[in-house]
Amino acid sequence: MNRSAHYVGDQRFVVEDTRAVPPGPGEVRIAVTYTGICGTDLHVAHGAMDHRVHVPAVIGHEMSGRIAEIGPGVTDRRVGEPVTVMPLDWCGRCPACRAGHQHICHRLTFIGIDSPGAMQRSWTVPARIVVPLPDDLPLAEAALVEPTAVAVHDVRRSRLAAGEHAVVIGAGPVGLLIGAVARAAGATVTVLEIDPRRRALAVDLGLSAVDPVAADPVGLVQEATGGAGADVVFEASGSATGVRLATDLLAVRGRLVVVAIHPTPREVDLHRIFWRELEVIGVRVYQREDYAEAVRLVHRREVPAARLISRIVPLDDVTEAFRALAAGGDVKVLVDCGGGV
Amino acid sequence: MNRSAHYVGDQRFVVEDTRAVPPGPGEVRIAVTYTGICGTDLHVAHGAMDHRVHVPAVIGHEMSGRIAEIGPGVTDRRVGEPVTVMPLDWCGRCPACRAGHQHICHRLTFIGIDSPGAMQRSWTVPARIVVPLPDDLPLAEAALVEPTAVAVHDVRRSRLAAGEHAVVIGAGPVGLLIGAVARAAGATVTVLEIDPRRRALAVDLGLSAVDPVAADPVGLVQEATGGAGADVVFEASGSATGVRLATDLLAVRGRLVVVAIHPTPREVDLHRIFWRELEVIGVRVYQREDYAEAVRLVHRREVPAARLISRIVPLDDVTEAFRALAAGGDVKVLVDCGGGV
Repeated sequence: MNRSAHYVGDQRFVVEDTRAVPPGPGEVRIAVTYTGICGTDLHVAHGAMDHRVHVPAVIGHEMSGRIAEIGPGVTDRRVGEPVTVMPLDWCGRCPACRAGHQHICHRLTFIGIDSPGAMQRSWTVPARIVVPLPDDLPLAEAALVEPTAVAVHDVRRSRLAAGEHAVVIGAGPVGLLIGAVARAAGATVTVLEIDPRRRALAVDLGLSAVDPVAADPVGLVQEATGGAGADVVFEASGSATGVRLATDLLAVRGRLVVVAIHPTPREVDLHRIFWRELEVIGVRVYQREDYAEAVRLVHRREVPAARLISRIVPLDDVTEAFRALAAGGDVKVLVDCGGGV
Repeated sequence: MNRSAHYVGDQRFVVEDTRAVPPGPGEVRIAVTYTGICGTDLHVAHGAMDHRVHVPAVIGHEMSGRIAEIGPGVTDRRVGEPVTVMPLDWCGRCPACRAGHQHICHRLTFIGIDSPGAMQRSWTVPARIVVPLPDDLPLAEAALVEPTAVAVHDVRRSRLAAGEHAVVIGAGPVGLLIGAVARAAGATVTVLEIDPRRRALAVDLGLSAVDPVAADPVGLVQEATGGAGADVVFEASGSATGVRLATDLLAVRGRLVVVAIHPTPREVDLHRIFWRELEVIGVRVYQREDYAEAVRLVHRREVPAARLISRIVPLDDVTEAFRALAAGGDVKVLVDCGGGV
């Protein structure tokens, strides 16, 4: 027997017993231990993606679990093996896929948004999206491999090098993970965040955190870099102010990584981009190599995933979990999907 | 005896006999043959840079000529040698210089704007900014090496590869030169330009030219690229429309090069930058290697510089030359500075 949380619209989920889906050819069934709630899941629950999500929908894509059943033709997985997934499915035929950028496929299916996700005890998925985990990695921490892969992708696209100075604007979960990944890459990291609790958490992760309203972030970064400015700025706030601040902070040849989603066009200081030969770099999800690095960083605790988990709630309380997360104060909330027992 | 055109403000120049400056240690005196009028010179003449240019000022930096006199300590130049210059002077000590980006020096002196330029018969400059030219390159064409170096720099920063599809928005002199350099790099080039005379010139240079108002440029580029979009867009129009069109045109992982100067912030579609993992790349002037390539391309006629020269005027008529250029219809106007006789 399976048990699934169905998003039914208007911030409500119905949790009920369902039938487990037996794995078909090339598929595996995963007993889901934990599924994290992502900012995108929150958007879904608030109806912002109702045009894309067909209710009732099982959402969720930040997960960990163990292989429970193996479908015909799958030879490289074993029952009981700890796993997470890279929740992308691509067409293989569009110009982006043919150019080798499958993660930006023109017809990308994001599993857990465009197709059933992981907020259920038993989840059947194509074996090729499965990512095996080290046996000794706690599965709660492993549920953070997916957002860590986002951070790894963003840092990799920025070409951040050891010894460089990186600024992260906005210390939500992805901003904090980027800070941790950037530090693991050997960079000096300054996090700018207006919320004192999130600043405290950044400090707890070993990062330097500054209130950009109370302090003068441009002056501080200038001082810290001998007048050069930041080599890389990760805009993870989603605000117009963050975009403006980012170009002001950057050194000659600095890179601005657009991490947050800006639904409407933003004013960008193209004169500064010209004057300092800046680059603006778009980033979207991740690639296989980012997952490999994310597993390594979480496993070695270079990304202290456990510290970001502020709450674990049972699957049956998922509506309440979304409400609490939306109210603020939490960082990463995991749903215990019951597949661990 | 020297003869110099002095910008005295309000679109006016006074041309008068002056004393030639003997070259000091490490300097050479150049007999200037031709000096091109650049868009920046036009801005200067219209007073837009009066905060930076101290009148009376000799401006001009797109030039060609021959070494007339060699100062003490200069061993690698010879009298009569054809030359142009790379008109940049840097401090060597600021963070940008120390990082190897001297052309974006925090205290960059642009020779011909911040210090005396080439609209005179006799010009004394540091020998280290001199770029030697092939003996058989006509000096009128050689006056276009400097703007060609701009185009080479912009194409190099775009990482444009053979077989890729490039779009140039705006067919002013730099836009046209970028088109020619991009084609020489093996790219397919589409030029978007509203002015029919400039479109005709682009076609004359062997480029494909489209009116972006009458045609549907996004549809055309989609069709030409099998639905992918452009690999690189060079925004050389300076317009808000150009910026918007640029992001719409780009393929997954496409690069937008900000060629034109946008004095005020522009709305940029950051959502599209995220969704397609686009890059925006700032470009400013050039580096030594760009000059070497520009000389090669002009010399081999891969950049047909002669076709861009619409008029050559005597130094004494420089005020009139600026007026004609501002009125439109010309592409590249050269001033005959009299150093060729």
